Amino acid sequence: MRPAFQIIERCRKLAAHTEEPGFITRTFLSDAMRGVHADVRTWMQHAGMTVSIDAVGNIRGYYAGAQPDAPRLIIGSHLDTVPHAGAFDGILGVVLGVELVELLVGRRFHFAIEVVGFSEEEGVRFGVPFIGSRALIGDIDESLSALAADAIRAYGLDPSKIPDARVTGTTVGYLEFHIEQGPLLESLNLSLGVVTAIAGQSRLDVRFEGHANHAGTTPMHLRHDALAGAAEWIGAVEREATAGRDLVATVGKIDVRPGAGNVIAGSAAMSLDVRHTDDGVRTGAVARLLEGAKQIAARRGLTVTSELRLDQPAAPMDAGLTEVLAEAVRAAGHADHRMASGAGHDAMIMVKQMPAAMLFLRSPHGISHHPDESVLAQDVAAALDTGVHFLEQLERTRG
Amino acid sequence: MRPAFQIIERCRKLAAHTEEPGFITRTFLSDAMRGVHADVRTWMQHAGMTVSIDAVGNIRGYYAGAQPDAPRLIIGSHLDTVPHAGAFDGILGVVLGVELVELLVGRRFHFAIEVVGFSEEEGVRFGVPFIGSRALIGDIDESLSALAADAIRAYGLDPSKIPDARVTGTTVGYLEFHIEQGPLLESLNLSLGVVTAIAGQSRLDVRFEGHANHAGTTPMHLRHDALAGAAEWIGAVEREATAGRDLVATVGKIDVRPGAGNVIAGSAAMSLDVRHTDDGVRTGAVARLLEGAKQIAARRGLTVTSELRLDQPAAPMDAGLTEVLAEAVRAAGHADHRMASGAGHDAMIMVKQMPAAMLFLRSPHGISHHPDESVLAQDVAAALDTGVHFLEQLERTRG
Repeated sequence: MRPAFQIIERCRKLAAHTEEPGFITRTFLSDAMRGVHADVRTWMQHAGMTVSIDAVGNIRGYYAGAQPDAPRLIIGSHLDTVPHAGAFDGILGVVLGVELVELLVGRRFHFAIEVVGFSEEEGVRFGVPFIGSRALIGDIDESLSALAADAIRAYGLDPSKIPDARVTGTTVGYLEFHIEQGPLLESLNLSLGVVTAIAGQSRLDVRFEGHANHAGTTPMHLRHDALAGAAEWIGAVEREATAGRDLVATVGKIDVRPGAGNVIAGSAAMSLDVRHTDDGVRTGAVARLLEGAKQIAARRGLTVTSELRLDQPAAPMDAGLTEVLAEAVRAAGHADHRMASGAGHDAMIMVKQMPAAMLFLRSPHGISHHPDESVLAQDVAAALDTGVHFLEQLERTRG
Repeated sequence: MRPAFQIIERCRKLAAHTEEPGFITRTFLSDAMRGVHADVRTWMQHAGMTVSIDAVGNIRGYYAGAQPDAPRLIIGSHLDTVPHAGAFDGILGVVLGVELVELLVGRRFHFAIEVVGFSEEEGVRFGVPFIGSRALIGDIDESLSALAADAIRAYGLDPSKIPDARVTGTTVGYLEFHIEQGPLLESLNLSLGVVTAIAGQSRLDVRFEGHANHAGTTPMHLRHDALAGAAEWIGAVEREATAGRDLVATVGKIDVRPGAGNVIAGSAAMSLDVRHTDDGVRTGAVARLLEGAKQIAARRGLTVTSELRLDQPAAPMDAGLTEVLAEAVRAAGHADHRMASGAGHDAMIMVKQMPAAMLFLRSPHGISHHPDESVLAQDVAAALDTGVHFLEQLERTRG
């Protein structure tokens, strides 16, 4: 368990590098990232890696293979956080990758290992997520480059070098360890989950419009209550998702106008978030929900409008590399539980260019993006064991 | 129709006295009220009334009866407005009362008439409504007196004289003309409605608490979604009111936290407004709705709390004076439609001390508390005719 405790301790240490004392807040290339880079650099070097920081601020530790031209396995996750975050979302995957290499105590494989701490995944600073991993697959366009250029220069880096951040040469694939950020593994009493796919997402704004009227003087049968219509629809959203398999749908935001206790709502504007690993299931559910909204509006004398804000396809993990990971989970003595990720992760970007696999660690109480976010040492040990078996298994295949 | 047009024109003229150029906003004893008092004083004097302004700023026009000790009929409504109001809510009742006296061209009855323009009904300035009518029934306590004292002095009045505002001597009763502020008369194609009672009101804050969780990573069956619970309950509120006779119940306000599209709602705080002329019906509905909220919360693993903010009993109008008014409506050739008032009015205060009756005028599109608030000249003429018949009828009774 000692390495597991060291991993947790290191995550907690990195949490001290924050933009906001008393909280963990560390956005893309903020000054707080300098301390993180210094610590991670020390640990990477101690594990035998050659360390560099690329032009978007990813810290990259290279652990050479047995041959100079060995293909590369990338192990990564992100080092930035949301505001008032926990200590483990993203960070854990980087620190665990470094620990895994440290456990090799110099042993070389037929592949090199590059541990990457992505500079940006959460999208907080510029409203654009995944800047770190997008740089590795050469997906930083000019507008994003221009958006981030000042921040990059302020950190002492050179935005003209962004193309050099791209991964070249042969790769074995990408492996990411990450906390689940949900309650499923805990509810099943499992330490680990093998991610089969990252769910696609639909995000929409949906607005019902009715007539704001006096709550005392307007009889029920003469009302066009936008909130009553919205409430009926929120029920329909919940039923649609509950009826589907592994489908989630959420109305998390509602803004009612005029929003006074004695005035019937004239408008109700809501968010809708729908996720599934099968894009057809997802878009089918969205279509049914919008059709349902129209029927509710028509019956109530309301109007309904919607705007599609995000339509992001699902990202299946690589089947072959996922089998290697699942085999490693079993070899480490754990249940091979397959699950989808409802949240986006860097693996979703990396899989566009190389085989990618992802392992979830149980999130106690399903809590993430919150100071109470945690991991259990036994689960970290399980993930680390799995990582060791994963490397062994890859070596057997490649050796 | 000429007097009806004059009434509408005078209401529009008073609307020009506002605290906020471009809108009609005139709170208790604001400077804007000075212009209103000047205009109303002129019109009252022209109609043959003796004018005074009492210590809470009510303008009072006294039109003597045939004998010096004649009992008094009070005709009143309010001259203050909500922010961004229309021109007729309250104002119309005062201007119509003045016009009614003007139409008498000096004729005296066996009762005197006092037309009162209440200084305050909406409760905007101090969060306390009905200051004007409460002064007439001697219901200004020390704390309210202290609250309003500076405003009263700033207007050039003397707060120590508030007790003198109280109506003394014999009264015939109180009559109020007011726009309906609802769509019912319009939906029935009627000009006038005889108010049988002012509904009692319950106002509550109701809050569901669940767990804020990631919208992507929390399966439907592991959610404790406060907004989904709230939505189910909003549906129950609507069904409860629709099933009742003349019952209205409204959720007009909802505040969801954290209120992000990708986060399941951890809490949903709502307003509840329930009104009925039968207090038992009203409190019974509230009790059932709170019980329903508990059941919803229990089934969903949420908690629900509620706080009673207002529990105001219904105020039935005086049966005898209401019959006189209804007879006058019929005599003027209109349908005698009886209805409840879902909104509070000065008549609700006055009826505590004397017989009170109230006549509603149709509100086009049910609009009030809005710049688009209006009245139809034909309905104003109908109300004025009814007023004339009401006075004649009273005179026949008293003469």
